[in-house]
Amino acid sequence: MSGSTLGELFRVTNFGESHGPAIGCVIDGCPPGMLLSEADIQPELDRRRPGTSRHVTQRNEADAVEILSGVYEGRTTGTPICLLIRNTDQRSKDYGNIAQTFRPGHADYTYWHKYGIRDPRGGGRSSARLTAPTVAAGAVARKWLAEQHGVSLRGCMTAIGEIDIPRDDWTQVDQNPFFAATASKTAELEAYMDALRKSGDSVGARLYVEASGVPVGLGEPLYDRLDADIAHAMMGLNAVKGVEVGAGFDSVRQRGSEHGDELTPEGFASNHAGGVLGGISTGQDITVNLAIKPTSSIRTPRRSIDLAGTPATVETFGRHDPCVGIRTTPIAEALLALVLIDHVMRHRAQCGDVHVATPDIARG
Amino acid sequence: MSGSTLGELFRVTNFGESHGPAIGCVIDGCPPGMLLSEADIQPELDRRRPGTSRHVTQRNEADAVEILSGVYEGRTTGTPICLLIRNTDQRSKDYGNIAQTFRPGHADYTYWHKYGIRDPRGGGRSSARLTAPTVAAGAVARKWLAEQHGVSLRGCMTAIGEIDIPRDDWTQVDQNPFFAATASKTAELEAYMDALRKSGDSVGARLYVEASGVPVGLGEPLYDRLDADIAHAMMGLNAVKGVEVGAGFDSVRQRGSEHGDELTPEGFASNHAGGVLGGISTGQDITVNLAIKPTSSIRTPRRSIDLAGTPATVETFGRHDPCVGIRTTPIAEALLALVLIDHVMRHRAQCGDVHVATPDIARG
Amino acid sequence: MSGSTLGELFRVTNFGESHGPAIGCVIDGCPPGMLLSEADIQPELDRRRPGTSRHVTQRNEADAVEILSGVYEGRTTGTPICLLIRNTDQRSKDYGNIAQTFRPGHADYTYWHKYGIRDPRGGGRSSARLTAPTVAAGAVARKWLAEQHGVSLRGCMTAIGEIDIPRDDWTQVDQNPFFAATASKTAELEAYMDALRKSGDSVGARLYVEASGVPVGLGEPLYDRLDADIAHAMMGLNAVKGVEVGAGFDSVRQRGSEHGDELTPEGFASNHAGGVLGGISTGQDITVNLAIKPTSSIRTPRRSIDLAGTPATVETFGRHDPCVGIRTTPIAEALLALVLIDHVMRHRAQCGDVHVATPDIARG
Amino acid sequence: MSGSTLGELFRVTNFGESHGPAIGCVIDGCPPGMLLSEADIQPELDRRRPGTSRHVTQRNEADAVEILSGVYEGRTTGTPICLLIRNTDQRSKDYGNIAQTFRPGHADYTYWHKYGIRDPRGGGRSSARLTAPTVAAGAVARKWLAEQHGVSLRGCMTAIGEIDIPRDDWTQVDQNPFFAATASKTAELEAYMDALRKSGDSVGARLYVEASGVPVGLGEPLYDRLDADIAHAMMGLNAVKGVEVGAGFDSVRQRGSEHGDELTPEGFASNHAGGVLGGISTGQDITVNLAIKPTSSIRTPRRSIDLAGTPATVETFGRHDPCVGIRTTPIAEALLALVLIDHVMRHRAQCGDVHVATPDIARG
Repeated sequence: MSGSTLGELFRVTNFGESHGPAIGCVIDGCPPGMLLSEADIQPELDRRRPGTSRHVTQRNEADAVEILSGVYEGRTTGTPICLLIRNTDQRSKDYGNIAQTFRPGHADYTYWHKYGIRDPRGGGRSSARLTAPTVAAGAVARKWLAEQHGVSLRGCMTAIGEIDIPRDDWTQVDQNPFFAATASKTAELEAYMDALRKSGDSVGARLYVEASGVPVGLGEPLYDRLDADIAHAMMGLNAVKGVEVGAGFDSVRQRGSEHGDELTPEGFASNHAGGVLGGISTGQDITVNLAIKPTSSIRTPRRSIDLAGTPATVETFGRHDPCVGIRTTPIAEALLALVLIDHVMRHRAQCGDVHVATPDIARG
Repeated sequence: MSGSTLGELFRVTNFGESHGPAIGCVIDGCPPGMLLSEADIQPELDRRRPGTSRHVTQRNEADAVEILSGVYEGRTTGTPICLLIRNTDQRSKDYGNIAQTFRPGHADYTYWHKYGIRDPRGGGRSSARLTAPTVAAGAVARKWLAEQHGVSLRGCMTAIGEIDIPRDDWTQVDQNPFFAATASKTAELEAYMDALRKSGDSVGARLYVEASGVPVGLGEPLYDRLDADIAHAMMGLNAVKGVEVGAGFDSVRQRGSEHGDELTPEGFASNHAGGVLGGISTGQDITVNLAIKPTSSIRTPRRSIDLAGTPATVETFGRHDPCVGIRTTPIAEALLALVLIDHVMRHRAQCGDVHVATPDIARG
Repeated sequence: MSGSTLGELFRVTNFGESHGPAIGCVIDGCPPGMLLSEADIQPELDRRRPGTSRHVTQRNEADAVEILSGVYEGRTTGTPICLLIRNTDQRSKDYGNIAQTFRPGHADYTYWHKYGIRDPRGGGRSSARLTAPTVAAGAVARKWLAEQHGVSLRGCMTAIGEIDIPRDDWTQVDQNPFFAATASKTAELEAYMDALRKSGDSVGARLYVEASGVPVGLGEPLYDRLDADIAHAMMGLNAVKGVEVGAGFDSVRQRGSEHGDELTPEGFASNHAGGVLGGISTGQDITVNLAIKPTSSIRTPRRSIDLAGTPATVETFGRHDPCVGIRTTPIAEALLALVLIDHVMRHRAQCGDVHVATPDIARG
Repeated sequence: MSGSTLGELFRVTNFGESHGPAIGCVIDGCPPGMLLSEADIQPELDRRRPGTSRHVTQRNEADAVEILSGVYEGRTTGTPICLLIRNTDQRSKDYGNIAQTFRPGHADYTYWHKYGIRDPRGGGRSSARLTAPTVAAGAVARKWLAEQHGVSLRGCMTAIGEIDIPRDDWTQVDQNPFFAATASKTAELEAYMDALRKSGDSVGARLYVEASGVPVGLGEPLYDRLDADIAHAMMGLNAVKGVEVGAGFDSVRQRGSEHGDELTPEGFASNHAGGVLGGISTGQDITVNLAIKPTSSIRTPRRSIDLAGTPATVETFGRHDPCVGIRTTPIAEALLALVLIDHVMRHRAQCGDVHVATPDIARG
């Protein structure tokens, strides 16, 4: 059980290494009858793709997805959907020198100790490249969620390093290279990132993701709560070190009289819960914040050891993202979609079809 | 799949409601041959137990655990261990009035919409009481982890509301009613909590948990990363709204040259990673922070609606914790133990026995 | 993962040993809103109960089931249902002498080598007594299947040793101690069993189980086919050595022109498939045959070895069933119900609500 | 959860359709460090391949397997192994006429009713072609079982239609087109099959598979017994209608004094158990018999209905196996290997490393 499957009913099994022949995933459990083609998936992959601006890694891959199974005459058949992405731009020479040392902040050390063997080419399995199949699967999930239940998802950067990024205009997110939901920060961030890249260092980021139109009743009371599964998916994403739902760490200082969202006949009066109460969706927006650590591969020399335990200095010269968080927004959206579709299906299994709640209409 | 099972190989299935006949769990997959009796479990339950100070709910239950299966002549047999805790102090009259309205911040609304039925007695399944079986199972896990691998776990409060609590003396944790790892704050916290209780309101909290002596190599590269499973377990705990591993949200402002922990022949020079790189344990301490929301059941009147959608005012008079975070420390420790034992077993299955790494000794 | 859970969505986790304090199970995932009380479960347990005739073990247990959770005001809440059966008649002295030797045909040898420890009291975990919780869970499943989808299940003995038992009158099944669906064999079987018991030996049996009113479309194309999951459930039952669906081993000699069930506007013209094509239910009756081995515990002396490998003679004097197959009918029915409910829920999750097919009405 | 994953710890997820672009599987959980290349897998695929004699379907595919991931410098890395087989000989015109009717004995009817859509090209997902990825995954499993534990597997046909095939010379299995473990029947079977093909009909078969050198202690007491998981895997194989372990249906007429295998200091005196007692392996040979139904696609005209429920006559002219059982032997071996490796890993997780038992050496 090497843990490469996400979801219980809409199951995504991810495979591949950064510099192997291909990466991809198998989606098992997709509902039948949905129109689906590569054109539904490719745009999401393109949002995540490297090489789109000077602020992200210059690795240049088309990341063209191929549907190998599970679709007949343009519709899903209910059988497994294999999505394949061939690796095309593998400059393995860039990584040759790192096979003998452990890069600080990297998975080199843990893979070596876990497996006794590791694929050092481009980070192998630990590469952020492996998020591409997740995004592809997420595209299938969000199409179904949108068509069947009107669920929509979006995300944006809310901080890069010291710079907080306001969230004042969602239409801007795709108009700048930072997934910033504002027009006010582009120049500042460009300059900040240019200076950072020049310094050979990297920086962390904070992200916000939300889902709207979520049916009420998704999630299980104990252990597999909706927020627990969101946390699992998000913390399972490369470089994520923190996850908040709703008010998150601000809850620590809140009073119960402030935090607990009041209900009125028109709906909830606030959303400190982030759309989840008792592990189950309320129908309000699901709101999630993520903390993303700075990229570990930097040009600044750092102390480490080699396989024999001898001190060594590590410097990484390959193509890298100075802020790995920049390309993370579409991945986080995909993960949220994957958790939601899984819980819609779990709900259907046990309780019958999902529904959208309005607070003034009691069930039954 | 109502999601009441935690773990893949050391599987804990939780059952029960706050005011039903009993609560408990079944542990399936426990390694055979370990000495185990109720005396190994009861102390952990007693740490979590209500009624131990005036700062927690005055519900008074012995929470006496009974081992129903899986142990023969004092040793685990490898077959399922059922742990049963009878409910004894169920004042259901306290809760009678809440069956018709949805308490703000509570799971009433979501249960009702999910299932079309809910057990309102003491919060039913959503009660924090259901963490008792988790603690009981965790006691089994931590005994095995300690005996087999020398793993130890501990946790403490690091903030209650606005009051930050330093972590300067671990021996103090069990010497005050707040699980504070300091002698310096007891009086201040006592006064703070007395005032809070008098005001009829509640407050949030922040918690820190750590595991030491953790073998290297636990966790899977993708999706079921060790930190992902920790996040799942912790966010699945009642009232938790945020989870951090290692530097957590502080990573946002860090530079890669600061965050990435350097290695020396003597070991890692820092631990911003919180003991997890690429989803796999490094052998360093696993460090986790939790944000816990304020208790939803408060005496302050709040706006809500009833089952028919009519406005209603809700006030809760039953016995409650003004800061549900206070009793959460032993639960968070238990959850961390459960995640760790599961990953030790997963590692054994795929890669053979686990080991403790020293950075200067390469594997193989 | 000690494998004590049956089902993916309607999950039954079984616990207990023959002579421990209690046996039972937790059902996780039961649909909410169904009327349920002990009175719905007890009759099925009574059908399986020992001590009901001189032809089965004289162990005398009430096998009274207690619902510990998951039911509120007489209805299932959707949360885990714990069913508990206290062990009351444990004559452990009967079994004291077998702790040091391995009984031929028994699990003694394999438990010892697997776990390094075993509970010898009454066979411990390997006792047929552990089928009681399965029957209890099956009673919940069949109630739901009957109420929601009109599915009914029944079974009978079709052979005891050399005696084939015709299936000519289903109303007789509960009128004789052999679950024989005929009035024609009772005297012969009584005499046969009396002689067998006197001889100190035991004998095998063959069983037939069927489900009617099964929705079309249950089961998955590959691996988790409906017939595969039936085979898993049935072969997982104590003493079962063979499972057939539909024509079973008779298929070997059949021609395709005979075996393949023709379709007419009125329905299928035959049912060699046993209600499953391509792993998916056709809506016809599901038909299953089981081979059950003779009871291993017999009074006839047999060669064995003790824990040190020294030759030993084993003779079992405790209370036993001379034909363990006799009490197996209600268990096999329960297992079939559990597999069906699980696949109904899986179908709902992926494809929406199930339906009954008539061959002349195409879907859509 | 469309059920396309086999195994809990050595997980094989199968994808593809008969006439889609490709078929394949992802193996998640393979132990790291094993030498592996396509050359280890291809021979097993070649054994199963169509077109190898006039007695099997004339579809001619190279079935060349490509390893897309999980192997680095010739060794498994512990990460998912994707095995891809491109479809090359897809004469879809052969199947065009069957999209509107349901072929008797085929999955057409059930797929249509389950999913509301089906891929009729070559049987789509229900094609026996989908056993190729299973065989490929099985090749990986058996290599590991052989290298790590000395386990070997073999199988043979024991009946085709009315012709029983003795098992007197295992070296013959690969010397005739029928996987017959005898030199005595080749001519008779050739004539039988030629006549059958000429008649336009098909016939069933019986198969025997065994594993030797199996460690003791594999399997779980309840539900996930070793024999239960074998039955699940085997009954999940296309066209299988019956599964026996050990004495199987012969157990019905056996006495306990005959069936229960006696133990001596030199080992078990017989093997009616088929290597499994109480669901757990004894270390003896695992022995399994399978009943395989006659191929459903035959040239004999048969009654059916079309999508509108109107009577129709169905005749199949494409390339087919007149006895689908002929090519089933390597698949059944592969499935047995997959079940065994999974239980070896489960045993390692809970109980530590597996071992081979000799009856005279008690554990500990």
